[in-house]
Amino acid sequence: MTSSTSPAPLRPLLAEELEPLATGAWILGAGGGGDPYHAFLNVKRLYEQGIVVNLMQPEALDDDALVAPVSTMGAPLVGEERLKDPAVAALAVTQMEEFLGRSFDAVMSLEIGGSNAFQPLMVAAVTGLPVLDADTMGRAYPEAQHSSFAIGDLQPYPLTLADVRENAVVVSRVASWKWMERISRKVCTEVGSVAATCKAPRTGREVREWGVLHTVTQAIELGRAVLGARAAKIDPVQAVVDHAGGRMLFRGKVTDVSRRATEGFLRGTARVAGLDADRNAELRVDFQNEFTVAWIDDEVAATVPDIICVLDSTTGEAIGTEALRYGQRVSIVGLPAPALQTTAKGLEHVGPRAFGYDIDFCSLFEGER
Amino acid sequence: MTSSTSPAPLRPLLAEELEPLATGAWILGAGGGGDPYHAFLNVKRLYEQGIVVNLMQPEALDDDALVAPVSTMGAPLVGEERLKDPAVAALAVTQMEEFLGRSFDAVMSLEIGGSNAFQPLMVAAVTGLPVLDADTMGRAYPEAQHSSFAIGDLQPYPLTLADVRENAVVVSRVASWKWMERISRKVCTEVGSVAATCKAPRTGREVREWGVLHTVTQAIELGRAVLGARAAKIDPVQAVVDHAGGRMLFRGKVTDVSRRATEGFLRGTARVAGLDADRNAELRVDFQNEFTVAWIDDEVAATVPDIICVLDSTTGEAIGTEALRYGQRVSIVGLPAPALQTTAKGLEHVGPRAFGYDIDFCSLFEGER
Repeated sequence: MTSSTSPAPLRPLLAEELEPLATGAWILGAGGGGDPYHAFLNVKRLYEQGIVVNLMQPEALDDDALVAPVSTMGAPLVGEERLKDPAVAALAVTQMEEFLGRSFDAVMSLEIGGSNAFQPLMVAAVTGLPVLDADTMGRAYPEAQHSSFAIGDLQPYPLTLADVRENAVVVSRVASWKWMERISRKVCTEVGSVAATCKAPRTGREVREWGVLHTVTQAIELGRAVLGARAAKIDPVQAVVDHAGGRMLFRGKVTDVSRRATEGFLRGTARVAGLDADRNAELRVDFQNEFTVAWIDDEVAATVPDIICVLDSTTGEAIGTEALRYGQRVSIVGLPAPALQTTAKGLEHVGPRAFGYDIDFCSLFEGER
Repeated sequence: MTSSTSPAPLRPLLAEELEPLATGAWILGAGGGGDPYHAFLNVKRLYEQGIVVNLMQPEALDDDALVAPVSTMGAPLVGEERLKDPAVAALAVTQMEEFLGRSFDAVMSLEIGGSNAFQPLMVAAVTGLPVLDADTMGRAYPEAQHSSFAIGDLQPYPLTLADVRENAVVVSRVASWKWMERISRKVCTEVGSVAATCKAPRTGREVREWGVLHTVTQAIELGRAVLGARAAKIDPVQAVVDHAGGRMLFRGKVTDVSRRATEGFLRGTARVAGLDADRNAELRVDFQNEFTVAWIDDEVAATVPDIICVLDSTTGEAIGTEALRYGQRVSIVGLPAPALQTTAKGLEHVGPRAFGYDIDFCSLFEGER
């Protein structure tokens, strides 16, 4: 799923790459990370005003360069009403620079999946920093301890958090990644279940060793495959499967969604009645912001860390856990997880047991990697 | 209620002053601030190990000296199980010094009432800083916006918070005092409803202008009056009233206590059936950590900011809102609030309406001040 051409160390991200980025990132969101549409419009307008963001390859970073991993934290449903603001996104980063007494050399996304793919672009638009072609999840996940930096046991602190009122918090020291998650989540919930964050700063060397690399490029190319299939009037869902080396799991119609916003997360279950080849079967899929486990007729069909995507059967557009509703014609697709996440240590962080399921991970792509 | 002798600018606080400080501070706690007993034992043991803390008069501070206002934040009931630790108390202060890149010149209590009277002594024992003879409440109050620095509209941030696991948080910027309270309270609740804090640093000039001055000395002298009356076998409750220029409100027996620990606070109501001269009457008193409003036979008898104290009728010892129980023989006493709190601006912060009551403040000491 990586780029086939050798990328330039530093190049302008083009305006025409923004829509494919939004489309691809939304698919990689696995239902979470929030719909990138508003963030895409926001950055598109900044481009129309003459701003251009530079994309930097992680290989071009100095070992001791300092990188800001950024994200909007919160419940995706809330992000539909409280839009992202580049100034607030940047405030979390400048607060971190003030705390450290040192400037950053680049900014990167915590998660390429969903609207957080655009978070570093917003920060870059305000600060002029280059955006790194990397993230820490290769998809979206709900919690801090799910990042590849957590899997690598890197230091979880400090973290800065800022909101629209310009409240700002530095979590300067924590006993564990889980404590970072607990404390920062409570602050996020109190300020309205959405906040801009800058995670623990990383060196160039740490990013290359533990980051999930080239995922901005990967998302753009995935988006291009979908948009290209639509234009060519071929099946865009099949284009996703073919481009990303995925698996078609199920096609059907959404019959039921139970959903609640709780403790800063969006949790629930959706049921899909099969159509065509799957017409005598039912798929059920759980989510905590992102889709976690899918069953077909009560048999486990896919689990985290494999990327479970619910796509519109006609357009191939991803459907978020906050937007699932009765009657939608959907295709459920599985895409391969980043390799680090399928190691024993990775599964401790992002396997089904990490989400409370008494199920072992059984890869959709066993033996292929 | 201030000291009658001219105090030394800087002097060692004597070991024999610790028990009067505990007794006096507990009375000024107005039922809240937490029982100082464990903190008193802790500091007493440090004194037995040879540590001596210095008490500094606010008049001796340079205008631009930097002062750390400290407290343990949380629900008093929790403080009965999770004891104060001088190292954690000091961690909040050293985190603030690291954040500021500057050292403190003195430490002071957020509130003289209850166990927080000992918080700066613990920090002083670890850091060697002098303890200022001042606080920001002249009693205890539950929330950040109740401090005299909030009444003075001083900057509410930054604040540092530390817990026993060495989690540490800097609230580096807030939109208002109320936002400081909301955010820091949520973090406090998440780490177990008790945390050591260092509030927004103050200059010597700010402390002199907006602090409640000489309250460590005031608490020690109040405690001495009670302990002296006990030793002389005269009524210690009357000694409190006489020493502090207070009012005797009611004597009786506790008949009912409803109490719940919620949102980081201890809230509830107690009922007291009259004895002796009050035998045909009933007193009811509400609390949010501290006593807020008292009624006798449904007529308002006293309200914040006047200091409503429930004392053991025999010993004159204060009884905390977490320790009230059926059958206790109690005397309810009103002591005068610090002058700043009875101004129009002060009442906005700590009057009955600030605690949700549709009642005007009517001072027990009208015309005396």
